[in-house]
Amino acid sequence: MNKIITISREFGSGGREIGKRLAEQLGIGYYDREIITEIAKETGFSEQYVSNISEKGAYSYPFQFGKSFATYSGLQNNQTEILVAQQKIIKEIAQKESCVIVGRGASVILKDQNPMNIFVYADMESKINRCRQKADENEKLSDKEIEPKIIQIDKNRKKYHNILSNLEWGDKRNYHLCINTSGVEIKTMILPLGEYIENWFRRREK
Amino acid sequence: MNKIITISREFGSGGREIGKRLAEQLGIGYYDREIITEIAKETGFSEQYVSNISEKGAYSYPFQFGKSFATYSGLQNNQTEILVAQQKIIKEIAQKESCVIVGRGASVILKDQNPMNIFVYADMESKINRCRQKADENEKLSDKEIEPKIIQIDKNRKKYHNILSNLEWGDKRNYHLCINTSGVEIKTMILPLGEYIENWFRRREK
Repeated sequence: MNKIITISREFGSGGREIGKRLAEQLGIGYYDREIITEIAKETGFSEQYVSNISEKGAYSYPFQFGKSFATYSGLQNNQTEILVAQQKIIKEIAQKESCVIVGRGASVILKDQNPMNIFVYADMESKINRCRQKADENEKLSDKEIEPKIIQIDKNRKKYHNILSNLEWGDKRNYHLCINTSGVEIKTMILPLGEYIENWFRRREK
Repeated sequence: MNKIITISREFGSGGREIGKRLAEQLGIGYYDREIITEIAKETGFSEQYVSNISEKGAYSYPFQFGKSFATYSGLQNNQTEILVAQQKIIKEIAQKESCVIVGRGASVILKDQNPMNIFVYADMESKINRCRQKADENEKLSDKEIEPKIIQIDKNRKKYHNILSNLEWGDKRNYHLCINTSGVEIKTMILPLGEYIENWFRRREK
């Protein structure tokens, strides 16, 4: 059975870096923006448009779990089409190979494949620092400007998650490991983390 | 600076086993019941009595954080004496040596020593299984009997935590790593976990 690692993360917590480095360490696939590209190919929408829908939550209100896509009421047809494509593509990836998938509700979408689900979080100060370091010279924002952006993006992620599941986004019960990256140098944590994950999957094979 | 690892845990999640094995792996002290013995020596109360007060929450109602022990109102004098002794002993241990301390609100009591705080949890099924495996032949309980006991013990731990701090017990923000032990074979996870912790402390020394 493929080893699927899903990474859910607060914006600015370094979840993406963890995912990328982990995939490299474990020698398996890495999927994040790649999913957007695939959806764009499949649906014919632009990557920019897909990206807006895919996880940023272009929804006017949160609503509850529905087994069929018909219950995505309140979404535009385009949005539903993109979310359906996203689920299909994520499932196809997980069928095809062991991999790390970042965001996009993969922990819920892939429930039946028994993924290892990781949640990455940090305190606001660390998240602001990380955002500041990663920002282009042209888009330097003050801390006061960054903080509401971080909060808004995570709010949208939560909303997106609410469409897929009645499990709460970020509730530790829904993850196998929750990693606080406040003040942590991520690259130094990948080796032991990778070993922890390998052992976690090994128990499943017994 | 000493490396202090505190382990908070849900009852039946294997937090104690993790703590013991980690201390062994890292070659540092381990404190759990040992604290009870020390309090008993210091206060003159029996270990049994101290144990009841120490973490099991012999409190009639939860109350809020207070900076001074005088605000432990609602506690018997004995109880206050034991909690004061407990705080003193935990601080002395952390001053003396690198160690793992399980439970007893150490994550809060030792805040100023910058400990690494770990929370260990599991789903109810795993916790019941673990309790069943650890039970003596004479105290075999049905799952229906075990579950309310688990819930009650954790409720008391939460109450005890409320006395020490206004941080919420079990809220991932208050820990550096949260480990879900559902279906996990703990002994196979200790090596990578120990390495993760060593790296975590290393960044502090930079």
